[in-house]
Amino acid sequence: MKQGELLNLTVRKIGTLDERAMAEARTRQVNLTKPAGSLGQLEDISIQIAGIQGKGRPGIKNKAVIVMAADHGVVAEGVSAYPQEVTPQMVHNFLNHGAAINVISKQIGARILIVDMGVAADMRAHPNLLVRKVRHGTADMAKGPAMTEAEAIAALEAGIEIVNDQAKLGLDIVGTGDMGIGNTTASAAICAVMTGKSPAEVTGRGTGIDDAQLKHKTAIIEKALQVNKPDAKQPLTVLAKVGGLEIAGLAGVMLGAGDLRVPVVIDGLISGAAALIAAGLAPNLKNFMIAGHMSVEPGHKVMLDYLGLKPLVNLGMRLGEGTGGALGMFLCETAVKTLTDMATFTEAGVSEKS
Amino acid sequence: MKQGELLNLTVRKIGTLDERAMAEARTRQVNLTKPAGSLGQLEDISIQIAGIQGKGRPGIKNKAVIVMAADHGVVAEGVSAYPQEVTPQMVHNFLNHGAAINVISKQIGARILIVDMGVAADMRAHPNLLVRKVRHGTADMAKGPAMTEAEAIAALEAGIEIVNDQAKLGLDIVGTGDMGIGNTTASAAICAVMTGKSPAEVTGRGTGIDDAQLKHKTAIIEKALQVNKPDAKQPLTVLAKVGGLEIAGLAGVMLGAGDLRVPVVIDGLISGAAALIAAGLAPNLKNFMIAGHMSVEPGHKVMLDYLGLKPLVNLGMRLGEGTGGALGMFLCETAVKTLTDMATFTEAGVSEKS
Repeated sequence: MKQGELLNLTVRKIGTLDERAMAEARTRQVNLTKPAGSLGQLEDISIQIAGIQGKGRPGIKNKAVIVMAADHGVVAEGVSAYPQEVTPQMVHNFLNHGAAINVISKQIGARILIVDMGVAADMRAHPNLLVRKVRHGTADMAKGPAMTEAEAIAALEAGIEIVNDQAKLGLDIVGTGDMGIGNTTASAAICAVMTGKSPAEVTGRGTGIDDAQLKHKTAIIEKALQVNKPDAKQPLTVLAKVGGLEIAGLAGVMLGAGDLRVPVVIDGLISGAAALIAAGLAPNLKNFMIAGHMSVEPGHKVMLDYLGLKPLVNLGMRLGEGTGGALGMFLCETAVKTLTDMATFTEAGVSEKS
Repeated sequence: MKQGELLNLTVRKIGTLDERAMAEARTRQVNLTKPAGSLGQLEDISIQIAGIQGKGRPGIKNKAVIVMAADHGVVAEGVSAYPQEVTPQMVHNFLNHGAAINVISKQIGARILIVDMGVAADMRAHPNLLVRKVRHGTADMAKGPAMTEAEAIAALEAGIEIVNDQAKLGLDIVGTGDMGIGNTTASAAICAVMTGKSPAEVTGRGTGIDDAQLKHKTAIIEKALQVNKPDAKQPLTVLAKVGGLEIAGLAGVMLGAGDLRVPVVIDGLISGAAALIAAGLAPNLKNFMIAGHMSVEPGHKVMLDYLGLKPLVNLGMRLGEGTGGALGMFLCETAVKTLTDMATFTEAGVSEKS
């Protein structure tokens, strides 16, 4: 297949929610032994997942969290509190089961896939590390495009291929996660372009910078937008100009999941940036997305509002890695299990509302 | 033991959080491989649980949800959308694993205990039903006290005994749940008295009543307060005058859990009413409570604000049974597991913030 063909094919194949399955789920929700609507957002999510999976009684058994790592040339501008070497160090930590996402994935019973999409350092081979490195980190977006369009397409298509491969192992829901020093800078830049907000409105403290550093980070994003002039109507060029390789890979995962009719639970700011790009390429994809949580990064709320997504939890988290998404996956499973496993009023012999 | 002795003994034994264990947990949180504070409220909860259990590295293995059922004489005033027969029917549904709380307890790996504290009907014996019936439903609080003080004490002490028995099976965290047609009316009345708000501010739609019925329910609560004149400074008499038998039992569970240094995750409005009574009797108990979720019942937010508790999830739920509490228990486990199972910067060889 020529470069770009898989991407175009996948985007074209993304359909709409299955209205018949949703109607069936909606009817069942009303007949379950509880006041109608009393499970709130869990009921909405169960109906959405019915529509995605195309089953009135959807199921969640095989769960995967896909964590993509990459580096960002913009760290040369001093936008992060941590040095770039932390990216490969944290990848090792993921592989050694020491990070928060390892603990939470284990708790929710999800397998976890770690992907090197573009870490600057060469990673030592590891049986649980998938290397799909498109390049050794992006270029500094404050000086020019972060990557070429061909590289952006390569990363997107890697994401599509990865989720297609995961589907062969069984995949009922997928969560997205990230690691990459500097990636809140790229994500805030994407957020500003795609939603039309100013960098000041969407830039946050990332791993924990102070007021002066936040001002500097915002100025670097403004500069990157002036230098690159990304156009929201061309999501692929936005991704290439001010994006990142893990962001591109995650956008590919989302597109692939949409094509496969697998619900995709997005995590925080970085997954949100990927979601803006993916939904920019395939507007219907929004219906296949579930917001796992609300990050404290100010851009994340802007993203979720723009995409029309309501987060499942709001715990003041700002870690990334897919941690908030994984908590959301647990609640998606609650939503589906209550829909499918509860008794109806008739089955239980319980009187209905008078 | 004479009636009231167990209650007094338990109340007196409730201590304070273990500052040394909390300091140890706080230090560990800073050294884990994540930006300090990036797990937000989960970090706070992990430190609180360390303080409750008195261990710098707390653990959650044995989990129990205690669901207490009882009837309310005030249903004669037409305050609920459902008939009173639904209370025993739903108890059967719990025993047959058909209700939302069964599905969620199973998902989180918690055992579930169903207690008849005062269902109006005589329940058929069942191996999984614990019968601690104090009386066959309360009296109509719009006409006089719901129960005598002796009955309130009996129900409180039953709750203490139940949680003490549960502790013998192993108990690292406990969630509270309820079933009882009419119990949002009693709970809103307790909320109004204990927090000093007007009935109109704290009364909600319960299982789903319309505007006219809501106005009527509010008027009935106003009448119950006029007739009984409960005094917030005497929580036991508030409980007897406008409370319920499941509310009293759950308050006992909370007091017993505090004495045992077991974190107690409170559910929605009914558990919140029990928490107001329990914290009224033993003010230190607030430190041992965790709010599982925020209910859509307006009184619940008033209760949580009064108790100084921040809910873990807010999903627009209003079902009771312990469902919101059980979701919170899952997140408590996440909080503890991330604290204990993540690698430190040193262990993982990850560079710290520059």
